[in-house]
Amino acid sequence: MKAADYMELALSLAKATVGQTSPNPSVGAVVVKDGRIVGMGSHLKPGEAHAEVIALEQAKDHAVDSTVYVTLEPCAHYGKTPPCARLLVEKQVKRVVIASVDPNPNVQGKGIQILEEAGIDVEVGLKENEALELNRFFFHYMHYKKPFVTLKAATTLDGKIATKTGDSKWITSKDARIDVHLDRAKHDAILVGSQTVKADDPQLTVREPAVGTSPIRIVLSTDLDFSFSERVFDHAAKTWLITTKHVSEQRIQTVPEHIEVIQLNTDTVEINAVLDVLGEGGIQSLYVEGGRMVHASFIKAKAFHRIQWYIAPKMLTGIDALTAVGGQSPEWMKEAIDLEFEDVEKIGPDLKITARQKKEA
Amino acid sequence: MKAADYMELALSLAKATVGQTSPNPSVGAVVVKDGRIVGMGSHLKPGEAHAEVIALEQAKDHAVDSTVYVTLEPCAHYGKTPPCARLLVEKQVKRVVIASVDPNPNVQGKGIQILEEAGIDVEVGLKENEALELNRFFFHYMHYKKPFVTLKAATTLDGKIATKTGDSKWITSKDARIDVHLDRAKHDAILVGSQTVKADDPQLTVREPAVGTSPIRIVLSTDLDFSFSERVFDHAAKTWLITTKHVSEQRIQTVPEHIEVIQLNTDTVEINAVLDVLGEGGIQSLYVEGGRMVHASFIKAKAFHRIQWYIAPKMLTGIDALTAVGGQSPEWMKEAIDLEFEDVEKIGPDLKITARQKKEA
Amino acid sequence: MKAADYMELALSLAKATVGQTSPNPSVGAVVVKDGRIVGMGSHLKPGEAHAEVIALEQAKDHAVDSTVYVTLEPCAHYGKTPPCARLLVEKQVKRVVIASVDPNPNVQGKGIQILEEAGIDVEVGLKENEALELNRFFFHYMHYKKPFVTLKAATTLDGKIATKTGDSKWITSKDARIDVHLDRAKHDAILVGSQTVKADDPQLTVREPAVGTSPIRIVLSTDLDFSFSERVFDHAAKTWLITTKHVSEQRIQTVPEHIEVIQLNTDTVEINAVLDVLGEGGIQSLYVEGGRMVHASFIKAKAFHRIQWYIAPKMLTGIDALTAVGGQSPEWMKEAIDLEFEDVEKIGPDLKITARQKKEA
Amino acid sequence: MKAADYMELALSLAKATVGQTSPNPSVGAVVVKDGRIVGMGSHLKPGEAHAEVIALEQAKDHAVDSTVYVTLEPCAHYGKTPPCARLLVEKQVKRVVIASVDPNPNVQGKGIQILEEAGIDVEVGLKENEALELNRFFFHYMHYKKPFVTLKAATTLDGKIATKTGDSKWITSKDARIDVHLDRAKHDAILVGSQTVKADDPQLTVREPAVGTSPIRIVLSTDLDFSFSERVFDHAAKTWLITTKHVSEQRIQTVPEHIEVIQLNTDTVEINAVLDVLGEGGIQSLYVEGGRMVHASFIKAKAFHRIQWYIAPKMLTGIDALTAVGGQSPEWMKEAIDLEFEDVEKIGPDLKITARQKKEA
Ligand SMILES: [Zn+2]
Ligand SMILES: [Zn+2]
Ligand SMILES: [Zn+2]
Ligand SMILES: [Zn+2]
Repeated sequence: MKAADYMELALSLAKATVGQTSPNPSVGAVVVKDGRIVGMGSHLKPGEAHAEVIALEQAKDHAVDSTVYVTLEPCAHYGKTPPCARLLVEKQVKRVVIASVDPNPNVQGKGIQILEEAGIDVEVGLKENEALELNRFFFHYMHYKKPFVTLKAATTLDGKIATKTGDSKWITSKDARIDVHLDRAKHDAILVGSQTVKADDPQLTVREPAVGTSPIRIVLSTDLDFSFSERVFDHAAKTWLITTKHVSEQRIQTVPEHIEVIQLNTDTVEINAVLDVLGEGGIQSLYVEGGRMVHASFIKAKAFHRIQWYIAPKMLTGIDALTAVGGQSPEWMKEAIDLEFEDVEKIGPDLKITARQKKEA
Repeated sequence: MKAADYMELALSLAKATVGQTSPNPSVGAVVVKDGRIVGMGSHLKPGEAHAEVIALEQAKDHAVDSTVYVTLEPCAHYGKTPPCARLLVEKQVKRVVIASVDPNPNVQGKGIQILEEAGIDVEVGLKENEALELNRFFFHYMHYKKPFVTLKAATTLDGKIATKTGDSKWITSKDARIDVHLDRAKHDAILVGSQTVKADDPQLTVREPAVGTSPIRIVLSTDLDFSFSERVFDHAAKTWLITTKHVSEQRIQTVPEHIEVIQLNTDTVEINAVLDVLGEGGIQSLYVEGGRMVHASFIKAKAFHRIQWYIAPKMLTGIDALTAVGGQSPEWMKEAIDLEFEDVEKIGPDLKITARQKKEA
Repeated sequence: MKAADYMELALSLAKATVGQTSPNPSVGAVVVKDGRIVGMGSHLKPGEAHAEVIALEQAKDHAVDSTVYVTLEPCAHYGKTPPCARLLVEKQVKRVVIASVDPNPNVQGKGIQILEEAGIDVEVGLKENEALELNRFFFHYMHYKKPFVTLKAATTLDGKIATKTGDSKWITSKDARIDVHLDRAKHDAILVGSQTVKADDPQLTVREPAVGTSPIRIVLSTDLDFSFSERVFDHAAKTWLITTKHVSEQRIQTVPEHIEVIQLNTDTVEINAVLDVLGEGGIQSLYVEGGRMVHASFIKAKAFHRIQWYIAPKMLTGIDALTAVGGQSPEWMKEAIDLEFEDVEKIGPDLKITARQKKEA
Repeated sequence: MKAADYMELALSLAKATVGQTSPNPSVGAVVVKDGRIVGMGSHLKPGEAHAEVIALEQAKDHAVDSTVYVTLEPCAHYGKTPPCARLLVEKQVKRVVIASVDPNPNVQGKGIQILEEAGIDVEVGLKENEALELNRFFFHYMHYKKPFVTLKAATTLDGKIATKTGDSKWITSKDARIDVHLDRAKHDAILVGSQTVKADDPQLTVREPAVGTSPIRIVLSTDLDFSFSERVFDHAAKTWLITTKHVSEQRIQTVPEHIEVIQLNTDTVEINAVLDVLGEGGIQSLYVEGGRMVHASFIKAKAFHRIQWYIAPKMLTGIDALTAVGGQSPEWMKEAIDLEFEDVEKIGPDLKITARQKKEA
């Protein structure tokens, strides 16, 4: 194998753990000595061993004079574990090849500095783009301290999400619904509005056959008007309930203890205030599943980074059918929010369109 | 070149004339003698020479003992021109290779019979699928005596076609609008409802840079409530106005002479009655451009064979924005009309999704 | 259709005639009026009508104010036909779109000048690369006055062309042998050495199912040592016999009359002298089929522009088996002639590798 | 991730170790609990921990009720380590998904039996083809007890490997030579004949930048006529010298001690005898680099399973140049050994053609 192949392997190791390491990034490491792989590993869970630790332990004495391929700059600060940069020095590795520099201000170059000061040969940037893409949520969060936001919806080809009676089962195919579960599992949190909780009573977990960890469920509500027998409030995953400053203390008392209530400092549930709060809570990635009012609020505030839009091969018809995005129409078409299509994928019989906000020219 | 290459050439010749030969099919012919092409041609216009006539004239004496590749069975009836099957016999060609049999009951096998009875070697079916696809409107019409119907719409990603004020300029890009002009040119007729005429005042012609012939413009109207200064009634192309039996004679008098008025034998403008009338009028292909009520009527009646749906990378938002398909919503999602996606194409920044009705299992 | 589509059609028309128009180039023309194709055609044979003439005749009065798409600049000189540039003026066309300028010094811009002086709108360069590629033999010949040379061979994977007994039937599959016939038909002449004539007795014609015209057969021979019952000397195609100045008059008398004998002004059959003679004889493209000595001579003289090498999935083995290229080995590997691979195609079970001489850096 | 994604990851882990685990197969394992990866690993070296052991150690208590994805059936016999099947039972995993059954007669189904008897849910066959391909050498060896043989050569387009003086530096590009080093590293042994040792003095190791472990070097020689200062006899890797029963004891004494001498029980160095001896020596994969006589022997004996043939874009010319495969030519072309082309790859400027023996119809 060539250097690029070893880094490719380290990236595969890291990629497999996307969704289970947050708030830590996904990292993979491979140790090579005399043309043999002598150790490899990924960071699997916050609080557990870093990728370099696992790979070096496996390598034992072969670590001496080895080359280590790692997808992110080794850490430099004493946290739950001693810094990996020091461990690499101690193990007497000869060379470290790093895909991307750690954007965390506690590291950012300090890991590299430790290695270089110890006389270790350091190369940075091999397959950097793949490494940045892999941890796009983490890099976004490190930069903005707010989550990376993905809006998700599913409509018929004529843009409807439910009949006039509110029936929406099912717009998309089973394949598309499994795909949604897989995407949920990659995010720290899923967000819905109170209308969706009342109308559809979704559980918002990750279920078989799309295994993965269930994110935190975020519910936006002005008045906490729930019975709390709704499925989103069960014990299958954590739930955070975000409300306004005006909600009564009495109302808050009705919320079961295992639900975390967050009161915004605003009169209404403002999206930017929500994102600030989620950022403070360590949420790096948010998957917004609607309903139509919530989607409209995120779009109006331009508070989204990706749209994943499933279109089913169906014509529902009806001006009285429900459409995907609510709120108020602007006066003029030119006020529409401009997007760019990134990808179109066929998922079973359905289409999955991925778009992002259009970059200003 | 091999036999398949010659037929491919004949198909290219035919394909270039799609949209300009109706009600005749598009046909191409190539004459080959001793490994040289000695003649080739397409039928260009109803009333003018057939493809075989052009190609054989060009071949002169080389036609004797030649092989002729033709995309459709040579005609057998004495019409505006003597039958091509007889001409092939007279010119003493040796072999005729035919892609598809003529579905016209006046021909259907008779052309082949004439050739075979004259001792000419006949092969049928080389690249038949391409030939059927090329003349899909013609074959459909020959079978059903009604036009092949394509529904066309253009929406934002959130399914809107206009703001609350009715502004729709422009949803899609210039590239997509040119593509619509190219598709118009391939059809015999374009259809819109009276609301679209009043709201958008479209001219519905084929304009540069997408050159091609302008189809007949069909306007559906219950009451003929127009000023007739609307652009669809200008002299740039023919216009047919379809109305009900109840419209007053007085109203009909207000229609300018160059506009053809067709009164249905029904109380309302029923889609199936419209298609019967268009079929009787020789319209083989119909391109339905809306508006929302017209689209809803065609969909409810399951009276369409293809949908071409342009989606622009835009989010408009608004429950008060206009959506693509009107009419009444059904009660349940399972009552939606099932489609199958056939193709997704990127046209400039937009997507063009092609779908058809789902075949019953 | 768009302008590019019309030129694409004109190119398809021209491409179909490659191999049957030499020494003239392959040309196609399409006449468009008001969005309809009103005429189209190709030049089919030297001495017969040019593409523009055919297309304009078909267009009749529709030619007035039309746009004409033509793959090569219209001719400007009075030859077998009056110049096409004058015809276009006479027919009052409005606009002429030309893919490539004619490299013939008798034309080269004069056709365009005539059009422009008559006030016709001229555009040059639409799909120019495709047009140059289409007539690459013609453009090469116009520039160098010598033929474009393609070397063709067929070997086993271990580089053998015959067993120790000389048996070579068959190295490649039937599919590959048909492909050779198709390629022969595209060239003005096929060349072999006298050894090949004696050893393999090939007929060197184009045969079914790969129809096309048979090129002139060129045989190189120092001493004309033939019985002339060899198949290459039959009447199935023309044959030219190229020999040296030293061959006796008596020997020349043994050559049948229908064979043209060309005596070089050199002591041996020198490749560059052969190419000069062929260039003078109007041969624009030459397909060299070997044998090994002939190939070696062309390669040593660097007198080739393309190599088409068929490799069969076979291992023959044997230092006493015959290899594809004869002559004398150089002393050092670095003296080998450098090539660049252009394409690899699977033809039936065999590979067809296309290469050209490497351009100097 | 879905089940197929986890197995894909296990296969990536295994694939990375191809070439460093022989005589053991390459194996990868992934442990998943509640949608999280809790452990993963590969077997890295004979004598060290199996993939399942590494992955389960990493999983700790999470192993209980987990699903384990493993590319090969877990082992069942007590060897250097206790059997993995027992470990999986002991760790109380819930489900084991296996790509391919172990062909080793000591295992073959016994691992699965142990798991099933303990009530563990077992699934076999997920991505089986990829798993078989990954260990194709191992599976071949288990079945035949002889190595899988790959013949490798590099020639010019005209099939030469050296000039008349024997110069061969360089036929192919640096990229192709690196590719050869990568392929060497995947094999247990490299084989050459004595002529190659004398003519080219190759070292036959795996060198930077194509890192990997160097295989055993096998030299075939009838008479051991070496100075032993040849580079193939250095200490950079192991070397085995295979000779005949007739070589003198005196000659054998001249061989340095670190070289292993193997005397065949035959008069000449017969290929099938060589393969028997190598099979007994545990060699599962053999990469034959020539020279021409050696290649001819393997081909005549049909003793090869894959050919990797590099072709450089060069024309050497010369009947006195050396060709790739020696020996004696058969009488007739139909006696050639039939191959099938599997793949053609561009490696830098060169082509790499992969073929196998044609299966009998
Ligand atoms: Zn660390
Ligand atoms: Zn006809
Ligand atoms: Zn001309
Ligand atoms: Zn084991």
